[in-house]
Amino acid sequence: MIILNGGSSSGKSGIVRCLQSVLPDPWLAFGCDSFVDAMPARMQESDGGIVFAADGTVSVGEDFRALEAAWRDGVVAMARAGARVVIDDVFLGGAASQQRWRAALGDLSVLWVGVRCESAVAAGREVARGDRPRGMAALQAGVVHEGVVYDLEVDTTRTESLVCARTIAARVG
Amino acid sequence: MIILNGGSSSGKSGIVRCLQSVLPDPWLAFGCDSFVDAMPARMQESDGGIVFAADGTVSVGEDFRALEAAWRDGVVAMARAGARVVIDDVFLGGAASQQRWRAALGDLSVLWVGVRCESAVAAGREVARGDRPRGMAALQAGVVHEGVVYDLEVDTTRTESLVCARTIAARVG
Amino acid sequence: MIILNGGSSSGKSGIVRCLQSVLPDPWLAFGCDSFVDAMPARMQESDGGIVFAADGTVSVGEDFRALEAAWRDGVVAMARAGARVVIDDVFLGGAASQQRWRAALGDLSVLWVGVRCESAVAAGREVARGDRPRGMAALQAGVVHEGVVYDLEVDTTRTESLVCARTIAARVG
Amino acid sequence: MIILNGGSSSGKSGIVRCLQSVLPDPWLAFGCDSFVDAMPARMQESDGGIVFAADGTVSVGEDFRALEAAWRDGVVAMARAGARVVIDDVFLGGAASQQRWRAALGDLSVLWVGVRCESAVAAGREVARGDRPRGMAALQAGVVHEGVVYDLEVDTTRTESLVCARTIAARVG
Repeated sequence: MIILNGGSSSGKSGIVRCLQSVLPDPWLAFGCDSFVDAMPARMQESDGGIVFAADGTVSVGEDFRALEAAWRDGVVAMARAGARVVIDDVFLGGAASQQRWRAALGDLSVLWVGVRCESAVAAGREVARGDRPRGMAALQAGVVHEGVVYDLEVDTTRTESLVCARTIAARVG
Repeated sequence: MIILNGGSSSGKSGIVRCLQSVLPDPWLAFGCDSFVDAMPARMQESDGGIVFAADGTVSVGEDFRALEAAWRDGVVAMARAGARVVIDDVFLGGAASQQRWRAALGDLSVLWVGVRCESAVAAGREVARGDRPRGMAALQAGVVHEGVVYDLEVDTTRTESLVCARTIAARVG
Repeated sequence: MIILNGGSSSGKSGIVRCLQSVLPDPWLAFGCDSFVDAMPARMQESDGGIVFAADGTVSVGEDFRALEAAWRDGVVAMARAGARVVIDDVFLGGAASQQRWRAALGDLSVLWVGVRCESAVAAGREVARGDRPRGMAALQAGVVHEGVVYDLEVDTTRTESLVCARTIAARVG
Repeated sequence: MIILNGGSSSGKSGIVRCLQSVLPDPWLAFGCDSFVDAMPARMQESDGGIVFAADGTVSVGEDFRALEAAWRDGVVAMARAGARVVIDDVFLGGAASQQRWRAALGDLSVLWVGVRCESAVAAGREVARGDRPRGMAALQAGVVHEGVVYDLEVDTTRTESLVCARTIAARVG
């Protein structure tokens, strides 16, 4: 199992697709985006769910946390059942978010990867994507890494996704 | 847990979104589409993966089956961990597909729902969607239900998704 | 040239795709969605642009109107240059919206098609789609047809998109 | 009017979204992707239409050329009607493609922008995107610029989209 953590627009999804391409075995990819897609639409507007404010702030409620915990357990169960799984996540809670994964993982081995990107560059890529509220990239660039411990860090500021993916792949199997 | 089975363009996704809207508790939705999205892109072109032929035939290989089994275990684990989960699937193997789910579910209770749609109507909706290979709807309309046992069946041929969803919701909780 | 008018979730896009499929010649399809996609993202949040309120209300400003007028002229120019063009639009201004098209069309012949759908059914399909603000369908179902004159009307409440498309196609060429 | 030309995965769309963000006036954006979306789906499989081969080769037929000419005229008509329009295109025919635009433009002034990206880098980004046939980026990187004359060239190999957009914007108005 590989877990990538990085802020919005830091380039996680591109790295994941490259990883799936360069790794010889088939890996399943899940992430916070696919989890949010699996939730009822109304959870994106309610206090108990996840709220993306116009200024880029993201806040999550208790119902969200409860579903996310069950989702995390399920993803770990896929890995225990033999699937190779790569996760891209945004540790809004920094070290506390990593701790939640650790509790779910138990003794399952995982490669922790930090995906860094300079705040100004990530903010520019947010504009280029055009599908995210402005400000998320800058707000998340630093805080998601606070207190998180990695086996490996990549930085997409000046390194292409495919090159980052090859660096990560070299550490797998 | 709710498992919907029906052919391509029978209206499963629309029913799922309506279910998530009408059910008072938040339900997570997963399905064969989100599973295929989680696989490496190259699995959609390889013998071991899933191949969507131009005539609408879908064939799956061993690597696909192995990943799918792990995914199924993980989705069931989410439900065991307390999440309410609704699945939309296409039982290409009919009764054998249902049996695979049963093995994964163990003693977990599930509501089995068949989603029917007359072949000609589903084929027309396939044209209207424009994002599926032509022919899938007609090829799958009948075979996916062969030998499958349901708690409840809905038919989208002349009934709206929201009405079908309310019928299903009335059987939950 | 064919111009379809109907409220949100009345089924215009599905009919357009079916029309493109059943008409023997290739037709280009444009509509208010593709026009909105062509605008700067910030036009969807500004007073001069288009605002989709949470209650389903849509309001448009002067900058939007000016760009839309130029876009309309350009689409008509495509038809004058020999392309077959089908438009799907939402006449938020009813007869006034039709008059704007008439001014742009000049002597170019067009088939005016009204796409009706009962308000409650369109509202249900809005839930099933899950990608539109709730309430747009109900708010627009009636007003977009006020004072508009059609060559042909179809009703998707109980008629499939493909059948509606065949009815329209029979009037072309 | 601004016309950007560059190969697949050279970063045109990102630059266009950044341009729409940094330019003070609202600009409409159209391109070969939106044109292909406007065509009937079957045109992507037919000899007269556009064919994306598995090796990344793109070939277009006579029906495609005829519709494209009418589309080009219409886009120019939007600009003549007062809209600011930015186009992103792939000049598969190099200088001949530019000549086709020139014929449609008449005396309308336009800023010609070349978007370059080193072939290997564009190919890597194609993998990271995951939604294009492999090989298009490498095949198109050079040929689309053959014989084309620009007012300005940008290179996304080591320059972010937003920075390229600012360079282009500085030349407008």
